[in-house]
Amino acid sequence: MINIAVLGLGTVGGGVAEVVEKNQAEIKKALGDNLHVKYILDIREIPGAVKDINVIVNDPDIKVICETMGGKEPAYTYTHLALEHGISVCTSNKELVDAHGVELSAIAREHNCSYLFEASVGGGIPVLRALRESCGHEKISYIAGILNGTCNYILTNMKNGTDFSEALKEAQGKGFAERNPAADVEGHDTARKIAILASLVSGKKFSYEQIECEGITKITQEDFIEADKNGMSIKLLGVYDAENNNVNVAPYLVPKTNPLYGVNDVFNGILVKGNQVDNLMFYGRGAGKLPTASAVVSDVIECAKNIGKNINNNFADLPEAAINKMPENNSGYKFRVLS
Amino acid sequence: MINIAVLGLGTVGGGVAEVVEKNQAEIKKALGDNLHVKYILDIREIPGAVKDINVIVNDPDIKVICETMGGKEPAYTYTHLALEHGISVCTSNKELVDAHGVELSAIAREHNCSYLFEASVGGGIPVLRALRESCGHEKISYIAGILNGTCNYILTNMKNGTDFSEALKEAQGKGFAERNPAADVEGHDTARKIAILASLVSGKKFSYEQIECEGITKITQEDFIEADKNGMSIKLLGVYDAENNNVNVAPYLVPKTNPLYGVNDVFNGILVKGNQVDNLMFYGRGAGKLPTASAVVSDVIECAKNIGKNINNNFADLPEAAINKMPENNSGYKFRVLS
Repeated sequence: MINIAVLGLGTVGGGVAEVVEKNQAEIKKALGDNLHVKYILDIREIPGAVKDINVIVNDPDIKVICETMGGKEPAYTYTHLALEHGISVCTSNKELVDAHGVELSAIAREHNCSYLFEASVGGGIPVLRALRESCGHEKISYIAGILNGTCNYILTNMKNGTDFSEALKEAQGKGFAERNPAADVEGHDTARKIAILASLVSGKKFSYEQIECEGITKITQEDFIEADKNGMSIKLLGVYDAENNNVNVAPYLVPKTNPLYGVNDVFNGILVKGNQVDNLMFYGRGAGKLPTASAVVSDVIECAKNIGKNINNNFADLPEAAINKMPENNSGYKFRVLS
Repeated sequence: MINIAVLGLGTVGGGVAEVVEKNQAEIKKALGDNLHVKYILDIREIPGAVKDINVIVNDPDIKVICETMGGKEPAYTYTHLALEHGISVCTSNKELVDAHGVELSAIAREHNCSYLFEASVGGGIPVLRALRESCGHEKISYIAGILNGTCNYILTNMKNGTDFSEALKEAQGKGFAERNPAADVEGHDTARKIAILASLVSGKKFSYEQIECEGITKITQEDFIEADKNGMSIKLLGVYDAENNNVNVAPYLVPKTNPLYGVNDVFNGILVKGNQVDNLMFYGRGAGKLPTASAVVSDVIECAKNIGKNINNNFADLPEAAINKMPENNSGYKFRVLS
């Protein structure tokens, strides 16, 4: 039996406990062993939960920790501590991966354990592992991702005739969008995710702060009508463009012939262009309790199969990237056109 | 340096040599070592090629073999021999995987080497590894795949107003379709691929011969007009349905809201439903020299990272599956509707 701990019993952390419980038989088959959640750490009063990270990292039974707290602190301190104890950490925390992923990955390597973050981009979509492993031998020239389910839900509704504020209210009503939706609708969440993807494939660390970022708040009904006339739709994309050494977030016109055109509602889609394999797209639920938790569990299984070893996550030792200005919009339309 | 051999210098085999040559730097980064094609085996007179498999399997330098010959013989005999020598084999040969994959996988395990076949389904799309590794802990209830680029090209053109025989001629002209297109248009190629996918996720070996299979030759222009009126398109799908214990190949009506709707031309798309992650779709080029070769090379790298070890491909020891009759078409339409 492999004992694990879950830090933060929020939506994703609760999901991890649920997936481990409900898919016991499948996990046993995939891992060759059972997973058991021995500790839950939460700052709130939760029966059975611990509050002291030292209890967990000093328990030699614990082989893998799921950091599903979100935010920088105390997630950074706890992750650092766990990795120094040789305990692998699997996370959905894109903010921490963006800010400290390079440092934490080096610590993991030094201590023969792993720092994996499949769930930090694209929720349940297994895109990071595919890029790292199946496409590790490809020259990736381009990534275009619909990476924020809230924005995509709003834009899908706007395409169907609802205006922005109405669509936002609906998303909030359904629990997709936060009360303060800025991180979503201004594109910051997308920027963190495309920064992680671009860093993974480029060998340079792109950071969220460097990225020119335009959200969806200025898109109008008229823009959609115009786009539709031209056989296109409007999507908020995070784009990595190797040729122009640029990473950006902006609304793009997506032609009907592009596979991202059909990625609607809360779904995410990540289009990747390799020099040999050409276009690939990965599609799925980019958020939500169980899909995101499933991605965390897939990382836990990989770590549990490799106890005492470091899995190269492509992040250790990445040098800081310089980043060019976004190329001019020469499309003749209000928005850039996805090529 | 890791020395490999390529059996069969056809389209895919030639592609493997090209990918290994052109992406040397990326391969070095992914593998931590260089790949070198030491032998090419071909039955034709090709300068530098060998004709005797024994030269290859008796060379202790050779760690991995790419079997890109296609067909059952001599591919089966050569693969058997290589695995018995502890040499891993990576293949694009769906016919052989369907017919002898279970046996060959057991031999690989017995001899501490691997038998991998990412390129046998969906060309360059890294779907097998995703299902095996990232989704190994999921209960997969459903797979629906557009798995034959030729059929999808023909159907895309029919949707745009071309009739079947014209679209087929065009596909033949562009080199997508064979002179004898039966394996494609009758659905047999799709059946082999869905049999492999279903076997991989179900723990039972479904075989091509068991599968009810209807091709695309009876689809008319009127069917497309009717489908379009109802917001749907017609796609040839390979379907694995766990609940009904069925695998089938048939034209399906695909609603506009389904991500497979937008998979057009020669592209493939594989929709997978897991009990935690919900719907995932993997999209890319399902055929073609370099995309398919890229998938072979990704397997070679995985084998080269694991020399002396068996990678569990989920195929060894699979018991033969019984298979239920295809459920009745209750859709009220000529074709079943993808749910």
